[in-house]
This record gives sequence, structure tokens and C-alpha cells, in this order.
Amino acid sequence: MEGDRLKKQLHFIREIDNLKHIIRQSYLIETQRKENSAEHSWHLAMAGLLLSEYSDEDVDLFQALKIALVHDIVEIDAGDTYCYDNITALDKFEREKKAANRIFGILPQDQENQMQELWEEFEAGVTPESKFARSLDCLLPLLHNYCTEGKSWKEHGITRDQVIDHTIKIQDISSTLWDFVRSTIDDAVAKGYLSK
Amino acid sequence: MEGDRLKKQLHFIREIDNLKHIIRQSYLIETQRKENSAEHSWHLAMAGLLLSEYSDEDVDLFQALKIALVHDIVEIDAGDTYCYDNITALDKFEREKKAANRIFGILPQDQENQMQELWEEFEAGVTPESKFARSLDCLLPLLHNYCTEGKSWKEHGITRDQVIDHTIKIQDISSTLWDFVRSTIDDAVAKGYLSK
Repeated sequence: MEGDRLKKQLHFIREIDNLKHIIRQSYLIETQRKENSAEHSWHLAMAGLLLSEYSDEDVDLFQALKIALVHDIVEIDAGDTYCYDNITALDKFEREKKAANRIFGILPQDQENQMQELWEEFEAGVTPESKFARSLDCLLPLLHNYCTEGKSWKEHGITRDQVIDHTIKIQDISSTLWDFVRSTIDDAVAKGYLSK
Repeated sequence: MEGDRLKKQLHFIREIDNLKHIIRQSYLIETQRKENSAEHSWHLAMAGLLLSEYSDEDVDLFQALKIALVHDIVEIDAGDTYCYDNITALDKFEREKKAANRIFGILPQDQENQMQELWEEFEAGVTPESKFARSLDCLLPLLHNYCTEGKSWKEHGITRDQVIDHTIKIQDISSTLWDFVRSTIDDAVAKGYLSK
């Protein structure tokens, strides 16, 4: 039985190698390459490790790190849904739910449940840990855009109001990070990185 | 003061984006591309999250995850040192120590200390958490090699004895994972993925 359990776990670990092929819309800061969802998930976990002091609600950092690590795995089947694409967003949950069932279903039952719960917690965005992770998941692309002179914003014709609509959730969990985000958006508009 | 602290933290978060450019010798399982150290660090943390039950010593999983996330950041300056390259290994610690001082030094003092301690704990490999993380850091390239018919092993002319020498540390922390590694090595030799 132990052998069968380990076999399932290693199968899952092989399967999630495919998250390294899922390409996001953000560009890396110092090259022309777009980011993939696996390296983004690492970056998100690192940001969580360093910025939890700015959460206005107590955050269980261990839980937040687990959420960050797992939050995008469904994209292996469902693809990355660009946050400003309202059309692909329509069936996002359905696609991702199907993906979660297949991918997490590779694992033994207890770990399948654990992965499902972490992903659902992130999607619901109700707990402090998921609100914090979701906020950083908005903050990082803002940083990438700012540091690349709005490369991805410009490609997609994104406006200031769209970025504010998308990032305003940060206000619910961190007044400090929200202040930073607002001033960065203003600065990006002033510098011509982002349309008014 | 808070603004200065956040500025340093965000500078560090931008800086570590560069780990996504550091190329390892392992190939991704389903393409011809080599892996980078940021996506590998995510994969290592995920393997830690799923396999800690196989550690023969109690592991503080939160600590192990932090170690996994941070363990390769020094490679931004020091580069990836291939585990079978005895020449570049000679000055590895010196290069990485210098890198740690520069990169972690971007952070506020308390977080610089935290990052240094996590990296040093990984390097020393004495605690159960670092032994566990180091074992998975050997296990994953073995999986990648096995799943790509020994692509990286063949490119570098690696032999069975070299792989055993490198992975034998797994025996110190997990008899179950070591059994798996040994049988995988034997199978890889039988299939011609790895030289005798």
C-alpha cells in the first residue's frame, strides 16, 4: 500500500512539472521573455514570506505559503486566464474546477483533499491567508509592469481604471500595500507606462 | 522608516526575479528546454509539501518549505553549480557566500539574517529540515533524468556510481525514498538511460 501511495505522489510531482509550460502575460523584469506560472508561484511564495507584516489581519504564514504554492496548478489544464480578459473569465471557474479534479485526483485521497482545499481557499478569498495571497498575486504583475515600462499593459491596451479595479482588493487586507499600489499606478500613468 | 523598509523588501523581490534566468542541467519532462532555478525551487517546495511523511526524523514542514524557497537564490550571482562538476565545485561556497551577502543584504537587517540563516541551514545539511530538502533536491533531478531517458546524464557522461555517490545522502533521512532511488537507478541502467 505504501508503494502505491508513493507512486501516486511521484506521478503528481511529475505531472506538475507541466506548470513550467504555462505562460502568463507578465514579462520578466530584465528580459523579453514572458513569465511562466511555476516560477511565478515561487515568486509569490517568496513575496508572502517577506511581506506578511503588512497584512492588517493576522496571517498564518505557513498556510499562506501553501496557498501560494498550489494556487495556479489548475492552469496546467485550464491555461492562464489573463486578469483583464472578461471573455475567457466567463468559464474560468468551470475549466479550473475540472482541472482540479483531474490533477489533484492523481494524489492519494487525503492529499487530493488538501490540495483542493488550498485551491478553493485561494479562489474564495475569504480567509486572511487567501486575501493576502490574492493581493500579492495582483501586486507582482504591477511590479513587473512598472519595471518593464508597462510592456504588458501597453500590449493589451490596459487603462488606469482597469488596474485600480483589479488591485483594489489589496485595500481589504493591507493599507500599506494599497498605498504603495496607488502611488505606483499614479507614477506609471505620469511616466506613460499606463493609459489614463 | 516603514517606507524605507518596504522599499528594501520590494527591491529584493524585484532582484530575485533574476533567479528565473539561471539555467540548470535538468531538462523539463515534456519538452527540450532546461529548467531554471526559480521554477525548480517551486517544484522542490511542492515535493516537500507532499513527501514529508517519508522523513525518518520529524520535520517542521514550514521550516522545510522556507528552506526550499530560499536555497538557490545565491545562484543569481554565483550561477548553478552542476552537482557532478568537481572543478566548479571547488570555489562554490566562496562564490555563493559572496552572493548571499550582496543579495540578502538588500533586505532590512532582520530579514537579511533570516535569509542567511535559511540558506546556511540548507548548506550545512545538519537539521532534519535541511536534510529533507537536500534529499528532495537530489530526488527531483533523478526523476527528470529518468523521465527524459537520461538526457542530462548522457550529455555529461554520468555513471551509476556518480549518481549513487550524489544521492546516497537520501539514505540518512528516508529509507523509503532511498529504496525508491536505488530501484530507479537500477532501472535506469537496465534501460540504458544511465551508464554502468
